[in-house]
Amino acid sequence: MTVTLAIDGMGGDSAPHIVVEALSLALPKYADLHIRLYGDAIQLRPLLTQYAIPESRLTLCATTEIVTSDTKPSAALRGFKDSSMRQAVMAVREKQAQGVVSAGNTGAYMVLAKVILGTLPGIDRPAITGIIPSLKGLKVMLDLGANLEIGLKNYVQFAVMGAAFSKVVLGVKNPTVGLLNVGSEELKGYPVLKEAHQILSENPTLANYYGFVEGDDINKGTVDVVVADGFSGNVALKTMQGIVKFITQLLKESFRSSLLAMIAGLLAKGAFNMMKTRIDPRLFNGAPFLGLNGVAVKSHGGMDAVGFASAIQVAYNMVKKDINGDISAHLEQSASILAEATALSGAN
Amino acid sequence: MTVTLAIDGMGGDSAPHIVVEALSLALPKYADLHIRLYGDAIQLRPLLTQYAIPESRLTLCATTEIVTSDTKPSAALRGFKDSSMRQAVMAVREKQAQGVVSAGNTGAYMVLAKVILGTLPGIDRPAITGIIPSLKGLKVMLDLGANLEIGLKNYVQFAVMGAAFSKVVLGVKNPTVGLLNVGSEELKGYPVLKEAHQILSENPTLANYYGFVEGDDINKGTVDVVVADGFSGNVALKTMQGIVKFITQLLKESFRSSLLAMIAGLLAKGAFNMMKTRIDPRLFNGAPFLGLNGVAVKSHGGMDAVGFASAIQVAYNMVKKDINGDISAHLEQSASILAEATALSGAN
Repeated sequence: MTVTLAIDGMGGDSAPHIVVEALSLALPKYADLHIRLYGDAIQLRPLLTQYAIPESRLTLCATTEIVTSDTKPSAALRGFKDSSMRQAVMAVREKQAQGVVSAGNTGAYMVLAKVILGTLPGIDRPAITGIIPSLKGLKVMLDLGANLEIGLKNYVQFAVMGAAFSKVVLGVKNPTVGLLNVGSEELKGYPVLKEAHQILSENPTLANYYGFVEGDDINKGTVDVVVADGFSGNVALKTMQGIVKFITQLLKESFRSSLLAMIAGLLAKGAFNMMKTRIDPRLFNGAPFLGLNGVAVKSHGGMDAVGFASAIQVAYNMVKKDINGDISAHLEQSASILAEATALSGAN
Repeated sequence: MTVTLAIDGMGGDSAPHIVVEALSLALPKYADLHIRLYGDAIQLRPLLTQYAIPESRLTLCATTEIVTSDTKPSAALRGFKDSSMRQAVMAVREKQAQGVVSAGNTGAYMVLAKVILGTLPGIDRPAITGIIPSLKGLKVMLDLGANLEIGLKNYVQFAVMGAAFSKVVLGVKNPTVGLLNVGSEELKGYPVLKEAHQILSENPTLANYYGFVEGDDINKGTVDVVVADGFSGNVALKTMQGIVKFITQLLKESFRSSLLAMIAGLLAKGAFNMMKTRIDPRLFNGAPFLGLNGVAVKSHGGMDAVGFASAIQVAYNMVKKDINGDISAHLEQSASILAEATALSGAN
């Protein structure tokens, strides 16, 4: 089976250059990968030549509009009918591709994907779902920025969805779920967060609920799934990325501080590289909108080609392993739970 | 001038042990420091003996109640009249001490400090204010968890207060201020955040406003002062602390992976220690409630003695250098700005 992915060639800070460069990294890895590339043909053609992308592996789909980071999501939905982002998402609905990847405007991408592809049964809103390295192996965190403010039922749905993702993608048997808060005590946090805590605590069938977790629990690996509103989830993710860069820089400076340190640094290169591959944000780039009726992966807008290639890899694996199908099956099993959660959540 | 600090001996995860241990670290450093220690005399006396705290340097103030992490702030205010936390704060109001330090329940401490000490003119709510290491030196971040949800005028007041703190404590001449958001584009974020952005953008007299910043800008040092609501500020801070521990652990593992790596690790010890002192969360522990009519410093509840000693040092320096007086003077100069900000903020 060929895996065809629709790629938004114009999204992200350094598009379209790094998108095509990323294709040159991803295509040789997967012989059965075909790309439908959406964007400005005038800009894309010379890049495809420059990076020697074989014509047999790629269909160039010329589009005439671009959703930028300043485009309001509502405008991207109502207008911009021929944007690269919209057309790439449409390709999934029209079965021309099995998945879509974009590094563009998160809000616009989220709205387009949600409206065009629809959500899985029992899910009201998709959540950007990432895999995070921790002291206890890989963990799942959602939402990383699709929904800045969420209601009670979304917290509960994210808990169920995140657990399904952890089972299917990471093979965790009975994943524990925590709600991100500023303290582990019951009295802390927003009212809606406390309500979600209560519902999850009192209804053990919903998820294997651990309780509240704090920012430092994420990389400690306290739980398998960290559920957060999109605002604080995004702040946590980007703060992590920032401090990884900061510490890498400090290490470089430290190893330049003396001759002995420089020698040590040279000897330590292997150890450093080993560590770097475990925390490099580029290798963890590519987060699916979980809960959609289709595969849509978001790449961080500031990523380089290595990072964008990781996002392509995530989409490829999600399609190849039919992860969305598996998650749907899990959610179907949880249909009564989700209905219960929605009912318990009232109008929220 | 002797600096007298009131210390809540019963606050934090490992109190009272680590509090007394911290005193044994802090007292030898400052010859003019005197401690009033509040708490359970039965538990504290043997610890004072164990750590050989000189009687001349410490006044033991026996209290009979404890505010725990489960105590609601409102309960800590209305009841618990003889709690170590409350009595320590009272000591500042009654001029028996010039500053107070507690590692206890943040919400309760914040409410007690605010009600007992009052806020500075023009400030409605204090903010927990921390110093954060970055690629461009030390930066200021607030609120780190005192106010989970804040209104428009609080954002603006925090911007003015944070800038004053940066000037007085870090000596930055014209500190730039950023609002923490999930994107740098104007259309992102909560409504109240967008309004604060607009007010600060349109009124350059309020602060040297840079614009929105994201999680990865914190340690990049993009701005001198990062203003956040207490929820996401706290999540960002704790995420940082978590990832520092995570990376430290990864480095240790990497340097145990082969003989060559072990030798490199031994040679690199100096470089590592140099780096560690620049990111060790214990050395950055101790965050004042900024905007109070008095010095009150919050220590992270999970800190060890070295961390708690840092919090004592922060309080000592704030008193010794009359930092609150200087900040008040700055705020007085900004009185019209703060009034303007409050007026512009309407009822929020």
